[in-house]
Amino acid sequence: MNIIKGFPATSQDYQLNVTNLLKHGARNFGRQEIVSRKHDGSLFRYTYNNAYERVNRLASSLNLLGIEIGDKVGVLAWNTYRHFEIYFGIPGTGAVMLLLNLRLAPQELSYVVNHAEAKLIFVDESLIDVAEAIAPLCKRVEGYVILTDKALNDISTSLTPIYSYEDLLSETTPINNWPNLDETSAYSACYTSGTTGRPKGVYYSHRDVYLQAMMYAANASISINDCLFQIVPMFHVIGWGTPYAATLVGAKLVFPGKYSLNDLKELTEILIQEKVTISNGAPAILMPMLEYIRKMDPKPDLSRTRFISGASEPPIVMMKGFWDLTRAEIIHSYGSTEAHAIVTLNRVTPVLDKKLSEEERWDLKRKQGYIVVGLDVKIVDEFGNELPHDGESSGEILLRGPWVSGSYYKAPGSEVQFTEDGYFRSGDVGTIDSDGFLKITDRLKDLIKSGGEWISSVDMENAIVSHPSVLEAAVVGCPHPKWEERPLALVVLRDELKVNKEDIFRHLAEKFAKWQLPDEVLFVNTILRTSVGKIDKKFIRENYKDVYSKM
Amino acid sequence: MNIIKGFPATSQDYQLNVTNLLKHGARNFGRQEIVSRKHDGSLFRYTYNNAYERVNRLASSLNLLGIEIGDKVGVLAWNTYRHFEIYFGIPGTGAVMLLLNLRLAPQELSYVVNHAEAKLIFVDESLIDVAEAIAPLCKRVEGYVILTDKALNDISTSLTPIYSYEDLLSETTPINNWPNLDETSAYSACYTSGTTGRPKGVYYSHRDVYLQAMMYAANASISINDCLFQIVPMFHVIGWGTPYAATLVGAKLVFPGKYSLNDLKELTEILIQEKVTISNGAPAILMPMLEYIRKMDPKPDLSRTRFISGASEPPIVMMKGFWDLTRAEIIHSYGSTEAHAIVTLNRVTPVLDKKLSEEERWDLKRKQGYIVVGLDVKIVDEFGNELPHDGESSGEILLRGPWVSGSYYKAPGSEVQFTEDGYFRSGDVGTIDSDGFLKITDRLKDLIKSGGEWISSVDMENAIVSHPSVLEAAVVGCPHPKWEERPLALVVLRDELKVNKEDIFRHLAEKFAKWQLPDEVLFVNTILRTSVGKIDKKFIRENYKDVYSKM
Repeated sequence: MNIIKGFPATSQDYQLNVTNLLKHGARNFGRQEIVSRKHDGSLFRYTYNNAYERVNRLASSLNLLGIEIGDKVGVLAWNTYRHFEIYFGIPGTGAVMLLLNLRLAPQELSYVVNHAEAKLIFVDESLIDVAEAIAPLCKRVEGYVILTDKALNDISTSLTPIYSYEDLLSETTPINNWPNLDETSAYSACYTSGTTGRPKGVYYSHRDVYLQAMMYAANASISINDCLFQIVPMFHVIGWGTPYAATLVGAKLVFPGKYSLNDLKELTEILIQEKVTISNGAPAILMPMLEYIRKMDPKPDLSRTRFISGASEPPIVMMKGFWDLTRAEIIHSYGSTEAHAIVTLNRVTPVLDKKLSEEERWDLKRKQGYIVVGLDVKIVDEFGNELPHDGESSGEILLRGPWVSGSYYKAPGSEVQFTEDGYFRSGDVGTIDSDGFLKITDRLKDLIKSGGEWISSVDMENAIVSHPSVLEAAVVGCPHPKWEERPLALVVLRDELKVNKEDIFRHLAEKFAKWQLPDEVLFVNTILRTSVGKIDKKFIRENYKDVYSKM
Repeated sequence: MNIIKGFPATSQDYQLNVTNLLKHGARNFGRQEIVSRKHDGSLFRYTYNNAYERVNRLASSLNLLGIEIGDKVGVLAWNTYRHFEIYFGIPGTGAVMLLLNLRLAPQELSYVVNHAEAKLIFVDESLIDVAEAIAPLCKRVEGYVILTDKALNDISTSLTPIYSYEDLLSETTPINNWPNLDETSAYSACYTSGTTGRPKGVYYSHRDVYLQAMMYAANASISINDCLFQIVPMFHVIGWGTPYAATLVGAKLVFPGKYSLNDLKELTEILIQEKVTISNGAPAILMPMLEYIRKMDPKPDLSRTRFISGASEPPIVMMKGFWDLTRAEIIHSYGSTEAHAIVTLNRVTPVLDKKLSEEERWDLKRKQGYIVVGLDVKIVDEFGNELPHDGESSGEILLRGPWVSGSYYKAPGSEVQFTEDGYFRSGDVGTIDSDGFLKITDRLKDLIKSGGEWISSVDMENAIVSHPSVLEAAVVGCPHPKWEERPLALVVLRDELKVNKEDIFRHLAEKFAKWQLPDEVLFVNTILRTSVGKIDKKFIRENYKDVYSKM
């Protein structure tokens, strides 16, 4: 879109870069606490002031290691206070922080490192094996900085050369003059996990990060009285935006360190002990946490806690479960790599609060929510015509806004994902109702085409997980000799609960026409998810591609 | 400061202009209510959707009237729903909205109109006399748009040509395509009230307004659950920033219309009836409101209400009074025209909340508060050296940030108010403590120089108003044959309370050295304030310039 210059203003030319953001936090909230769980389970505690001092040292170290403006520096790390320091230290120098998803396969991870031409990689001690697996494939990487409490001599690795993060910090003096970075400079690079083709690089600007932080604090009412427990991995889309929002307003920060589903007890204890008020996670972690809480006696009081739940639609049973057992609120948020974290937040507006019944309110909470400040969102039909906000008309969701991608980095052919008037084509399909609430009905590629008619796999998954005995469900379209595609349902049951196929069919028949019902329901032990916590439909479709052709 | 370009990001080139801001509000919160008090005292009610539709019509009308990108359009209006529409309608077209302080004298007001070269002026029906007084002096103004419910024929005025706001809106079709304005374009012009020299023009950009709104919503935790009562005149520094913050998050809006100190009953009733949660005003209005509430029986419950109090330091008695009688919280905020509304907000941080006694907490609330997100603030000595944040070192406050002025519009010689490294010299003197709280100790020109030593007029005023019988106080330095300057105190007493000079001296002697005490205390009925609600010290100094030379 053509930008029109108006009359000149008299404002200063001040840059929205993250150095200014962190300085603000340190200056105003220097004594605020930052807590970080170490590998041994103990809690490390320091303050924004301490963190700022160390970030100043980190920036000096990077300069000494020869990192220059525009260089890319990778990070393979869990959510820790060091990762938090790195969030500011690397980009503040003018280098670009490359987010590395530690769950990617070596082929994919090395592709990302090489595509971005990373010069240096920060590696958590416990992830050295991940780095070692890609090192032979990443010849341009000039060194590895190890995040560890140990002495460098005690680290055994084939990586070379290696540096100790702590030694670098202690052996240098804090930086004197941060560069005054143009706000449109790249802050970090995040590669989409590539459900189709190779991973594609999204390079966020400093301005993106700063504005998202302000927007998030405003939209989710995050304040200095909050305590953020950063469960979402910080290598995902900037941890879905919460770390910066919390820093901006001086909220207390808590980092869980390395964790898995085996650590639910410790995570839940931290929630309680540290008086967490805001946290975040995909249903893939929140559902098991709820299962853990179900077994606790007495139940914890989490009435002051709100969880931002993303990656996929939170099942009502999960939201109700948290509410009934702990009084914690689950707030659904929808986003994507290209939208730089979040697009919507589901908060019940006062107007709706008055007119909805309790059941309707729960149902509303399943929607993706209203569109956050700063974004233009429209839904369009296949010809690009904008569709009405009637809650019925369903079309592809297009996004525009200050922190939305306008292109992919060096990805020829990817231009088709952007419209001429500057929107990003999300590939998601949805409706917007007259209250402005967005509802994702499907991914374009997750719609099932049966005999010329469309079936929504997402609707069907939601219907299946609403059965009290079901923990997880995935529905995909599988090739069918007669109908082109037919739905297949994979179902994971709750512990010790027994249902059969017929129960599932009966349950679905309440909401779906007979022709829409899956031809087959398979009970499985687990449903594979991608590295960002979404159901891996690509894998499932591939795995079951012959299920109906053989029938 | 030199701006360093980093690696290019892949983000969209999206402009932070107010059209995008309002679209967001209308799209997401279309049914949210807007309430506006009319001249007859009745309440007009409509929604964001209705307002947006009318703003679209207003923009079309402006185009039809020949207003082009870069033109200036003046506004002489009270806080009403029409003024709210104008806030978006004028700047959205690319014209610059010129804020006109209806309390300025014709000479000063016409200077502003002519300096800005305003082409058109919007005038509230009740302010036609103000416009008539300047019209002969403002030859370039091509027309006047009258804000009124009446038919144009029923308006009697010498202004010509005149248009009816309502007719313009009803006779046009809503604008189709808003220009995609560069965010650095001027949004509105606000002229400083000129305590020295001629008024100077600050031209805010669209970006300024957008960022301030986000910052304010984040820092003051304004959300969709809030109801804003916009008491601060909207012709002051963008109403101190609240109208945009509220619009951004979809808060309910309430406008008081034309009001004076005679309308305290109605204003207080609106606070209660409309369930106001946030409001704003100078002590000049809040103090009389408290006096009114003192006489109410029973006292209103304002426990959900917070008032942002600016223009001058809120007396503790006022803050305690509101708290004791109504449970309303007063939050002090400091700002200036050049800082585009607010620089600080006083909210007790959790760290301080734990360690302070109740008395200390009240004392803290008198400070200007912590610095809002996005601003760099430093205090410097007379040589420009930065002073430590120890709560003791006092120096001039310098401001830098995305919405701070970098110059004045066409004001030769004013460059001295800006430093080489891009700071605005506020002319205010203050300290910053180790918790980041700013405390204004004086205006540079309000310091009293007696026998080579400085006396703080602000400290002394605060001390005097802490006397339970005192309503208002002003302290100025008056020329003195022996000591250069000596303090003079003007004191307004509360109704029916009797104290004498000696009481005031005794009260002051608890905090001040004998040589610092004023030579004279004069009891007066009223203290003159400037058009923005500050004590008019220029006038007082002039009026009493001979008080000590004659003694």
